[in-house]
Amino acid sequence: MPQAPFTNLADFRARLADAPAPDHTATAGAQSRNGQLTKPPGALGRLEDLAIWYAGWRGDPRPRLERPQVIVFAGNHGVTARGVSAFPAEVTLQMVANFKAGGAAVNQLAALAGAGVDVVSLELDRPTADFTQGPAMSEAETVAALTAGWTAVDPSADLLVVGEMGIGNTTSAAALAHALFGGAPADWTGRGTGVDDAGLALKAQVVGEGLAANPAAAEDPLAALRCLGGRELAAMAGAIARARAERIPVILDGFICTAAAATLEKAVPGALDHAVAGHVSAEAAHGRLLDALGKAPLLSLGMRLGEGSGAALAINILKGAVACHSGMATFAEAGVADG
Amino acid sequence: MPQAPFTNLADFRARLADAPAPDHTATAGAQSRNGQLTKPPGALGRLEDLAIWYAGWRGDPRPRLERPQVIVFAGNHGVTARGVSAFPAEVTLQMVANFKAGGAAVNQLAALAGAGVDVVSLELDRPTADFTQGPAMSEAETVAALTAGWTAVDPSADLLVVGEMGIGNTTSAAALAHALFGGAPADWTGRGTGVDDAGLALKAQVVGEGLAANPAAAEDPLAALRCLGGRELAAMAGAIARARAERIPVILDGFICTAAAATLEKAVPGALDHAVAGHVSAEAAHGRLLDALGKAPLLSLGMRLGEGSGAALAINILKGAVACHSGMATFAEAGVADG
Repeated sequence: MPQAPFTNLADFRARLADAPAPDHTATAGAQSRNGQLTKPPGALGRLEDLAIWYAGWRGDPRPRLERPQVIVFAGNHGVTARGVSAFPAEVTLQMVANFKAGGAAVNQLAALAGAGVDVVSLELDRPTADFTQGPAMSEAETVAALTAGWTAVDPSADLLVVGEMGIGNTTSAAALAHALFGGAPADWTGRGTGVDDAGLALKAQVVGEGLAANPAAAEDPLAALRCLGGRELAAMAGAIARARAERIPVILDGFICTAAAATLEKAVPGALDHAVAGHVSAEAAHGRLLDALGKAPLLSLGMRLGEGSGAALAINILKGAVACHSGMATFAEAGVADG
Repeated sequence: MPQAPFTNLADFRARLADAPAPDHTATAGAQSRNGQLTKPPGALGRLEDLAIWYAGWRGDPRPRLERPQVIVFAGNHGVTARGVSAFPAEVTLQMVANFKAGGAAVNQLAALAGAGVDVVSLELDRPTADFTQGPAMSEAETVAALTAGWTAVDPSADLLVVGEMGIGNTTSAAALAHALFGGAPADWTGRGTGVDDAGLALKAQVVGEGLAANPAAAEDPLAALRCLGGRELAAMAGAIARARAERIPVILDGFICTAAAATLEKAVPGALDHAVAGHVSAEAAHGRLLDALGKAPLLSLGMRLGEGSGAALAINILKGAVACHSGMATFAEAGVADG
């Protein structure tokens, strides 16, 4: 396996704490350029903020966005034994084949944004342990999954989207969010791929049992990831952390991706400053989680598929922001009167 | 000038009333296909509805979206003599040069969506009359502008976006919305490109004066377009009507585009069934106008530039919907268990 600069969770936390800041010279240069473009001040709304944010992370006051990377991580979950999903666990492996063949939603949306889809399967034949009975993963398993995410990132990419596939993983994400942000289990549970009312009640019960069985999860965000997360959630966290180390901006996807990312922000505040929320999903807990993180979504289209699909669709919003910022004429260049 | 199938406003209204409906066989075929794609039912949210809507208008249950057309219409407004804009009227012509040179926001956003920008200048050296003194346009002038819009549409396009440039045209659009939907003048006035509080109060006063000076505008939507609109507003209405005749779906842009489009819907209910709202702008009256039309916006990013910029950015949302619908594998094709 390729190397990552950590061998245990304490080292990983130290890498998060060391992470770089944006380039303030590039940010200032982008702000100055934005004020000279042929439009009334502020008329591009949020696109202006996005372009300046992107410029700062890329260290370029007039950046380009040409090499987005989309990675889908797949894992299986012991908690499916509790009957929390509308689909059987075999679907994880079947969907991995679909991703590789180009037949899933994320393949179409990534292609539209000029990206391929890298697919990383994480020991699908070895599900995590049922977290209602104790920790889902050992520390070594968690570090291996973080490493898989860390090493999957292409350091020459200029944008990262991470997505997931894992039958049962909305339950894992709900347990993680409950551990990180408190409240009641029902605050963080939803219908996932489509459970009925009884299934929804069961998910909330399972989430409560998960935290009860793993008291360490309430104490430490990375312990929560180990005890309640899954391999694909840890891999997404590892990839987002690597992107920060490389100053690659990230677009977050839906509830599961955001729950995984939230472990980083709770472990080291500011660890998600290089990430923007691509969309808010129809899974009600996602909006609550984004509010808790202070992230406003770019899109709100009622999507709830995962796979990185919402974030992949949002790539073209960020591309639009960067294209306007870097491609528009200034008032002086165009000979347009400036208000 | 190229021909259009109308020579007066009564003929134009008759063309609207004759307009084709979507192909219900294609709609049904698209609904069936949507249910077989490798995702949980409904998991792509609004993208699913968009794809089925697009399929119906294109008459193809598995459509492609490859030839979007973006047209920017420019006109000048006599009402600028009242001091309603933060920019001088010369900026309209300067921005037309900027559109033609590729330096404006809409050029960058259209390029990102795979479209060029067609620019149609409408007698910029002959502004409309000041509508606080009587009708902005004669019937012949209105028909000429509708014809310019009608004939600018490429019948081989598979999507249309229309945008506008015209110093003073948020005031014209506000007067039009006020005539079409009632309420108080202040309900429909906003800061446009950036007027101050005194400018905002003046705009509301001018809007009220406009309706008082043109009582016909409250009686008939196409008379409202003639009396209170401008050449670029009438041209957008003509282009949207032509798109309907060709079954080309339309993405509406901001407040001014939507006000122009609203004249069609008020003249013949259902005339905008082939149109979706691309975004809701920061101009507060735009949200009110979309609510009145029953159109939910695809994007909400605080944009308020016009030019077709918000709709151009939304093209890739619709492209994403169509790409998923037409490109994804079915459960049977992918060998994935169907729930």
